[in-house]
Amino acid sequence: MIPQHSPPKACIFDVFGTVVDWRGSVSRFCKEFFSARNISADSTAFAEYWRGQYDPAMERVRSGGRGYVPLDELHFENLQATLAHFGLSDRLSSDELWQLNSAWEQLDPWPDVIAGLSTLRKQTIIAPCSNGSIALMTRLARYADLPWDCILGADIARNYKPHEAVYAACCTALRLQPNEVMMVAAHNSDLEAAQRSGLQTAFVARPVEHGPGQTKDLSPTGNWDPIITDFAVLARQP
Amino acid sequence: MIPQHSPPKACIFDVFGTVVDWRGSVSRFCKEFFSARNISADSTAFAEYWRGQYDPAMERVRSGGRGYVPLDELHFENLQATLAHFGLSDRLSSDELWQLNSAWEQLDPWPDVIAGLSTLRKQTIIAPCSNGSIALMTRLARYADLPWDCILGADIARNYKPHEAVYAACCTALRLQPNEVMMVAAHNSDLEAAQRSGLQTAFVARPVEHGPGQTKDLSPTGNWDPIITDFAVLARQP
Repeated sequence: MIPQHSPPKACIFDVFGTVVDWRGSVSRFCKEFFSARNISADSTAFAEYWRGQYDPAMERVRSGGRGYVPLDELHFENLQATLAHFGLSDRLSSDELWQLNSAWEQLDPWPDVIAGLSTLRKQTIIAPCSNGSIALMTRLARYADLPWDCILGADIARNYKPHEAVYAACCTALRLQPNEVMMVAAHNSDLEAAQRSGLQTAFVARPVEHGPGQTKDLSPTGNWDPIITDFAVLARQP
Repeated sequence: MIPQHSPPKACIFDVFGTVVDWRGSVSRFCKEFFSARNISADSTAFAEYWRGQYDPAMERVRSGGRGYVPLDELHFENLQATLAHFGLSDRLSSDELWQLNSAWEQLDPWPDVIAGLSTLRKQTIIAPCSNGSIALMTRLARYADLPWDCILGADIARNYKPHEAVYAACCTALRLQPNEVMMVAAHNSDLEAAQRSGLQTAFVARPVEHGPGQTKDLSPTGNWDPIITDFAVLARQP
């Protein structure tokens, strides 16, 4: 018989892809940004290329090849590489680069998120466990009205998911045991690491995070419980 | 001519005494807790003695004599010393000790706080910069409905105010320069350290934090601006 989990005392959330639609939002931001400057570029391809350098940049930190650098700075470095790839290196001032970098602070939540989090928060502590910095997550929460109780994640651990140090640091910061905390993510690799760290796990399907041709993370590949498509299900029924 | 400060991009707050009435709240919590167990003790004297060990306990960390330990644990150690002082060492179970320790997570805000913070938050990022841990501040915010954007303070710096590392860590976490951040406190020593760290400073008078006989921090002793008695004044007038 599989032991039943106790209800979690905190739910912590992956953010990019799980809570917010980074692809649609960054594409839209870039489109408006480029349009205002008469720059022609495929904004969706630009957003995807920019995001494509996210994991390799973090891997250098996770592997110990580089000390901890907040994601804002990695995004900025990756933006410069992306502009170079699109032949746009000399088109923006330093101020404009940071303005474009702030695209990651203006991401729209998936339609179920705000109602689901607001209900869940009445029952349990909720917080992001994102690779985004406190600075980024704070501004994003203000933009998107995400009702977090606190901001956890990479900055707390000074390391990047899926390094297990991040999940452990979040539990310690909350003064909770790992099995009292549930990690909610749309990415199987995130949940694998959270489960190895002793956390409860919830998989939420976000089948168009990567656009209409998405091939990965369409379904759970591990023993996650619950498996959901809407944050509303996370709240215990009265 | 004194240079005018730009409006701060974030306001960070001392909490115990500045945002919440720790003395009245801990006294009341202890009174009910003791009463339910037929323990006779002067609950106000108990709260004051408990709080009296707060700064010496942190000083051991600040001075380097002890590694960083979250305030929850210092409160717990200080609680045991306080119970011993009042001849109550053998009266409570370990569970009851932690329950009593949670008094610090159930502190009532001063009357102006919620309205003032709610208005201010529409204009600027707001966060605690407290010696309380993320765990403590998160639970306290849920109890008292404090609308923080994120939780900063000792846990972020792994050190205790007024060590300058704490103010610097909060600014770094927010990706702001010190002069873009305003420290709000009812304690001159806190503001002295914040000003040395380059932050803007606001003094809020809390003349009964220590009860009717309070003698310290009744008035500003430094060049703080603004000097207020109500958080409502922190929000820029439209």
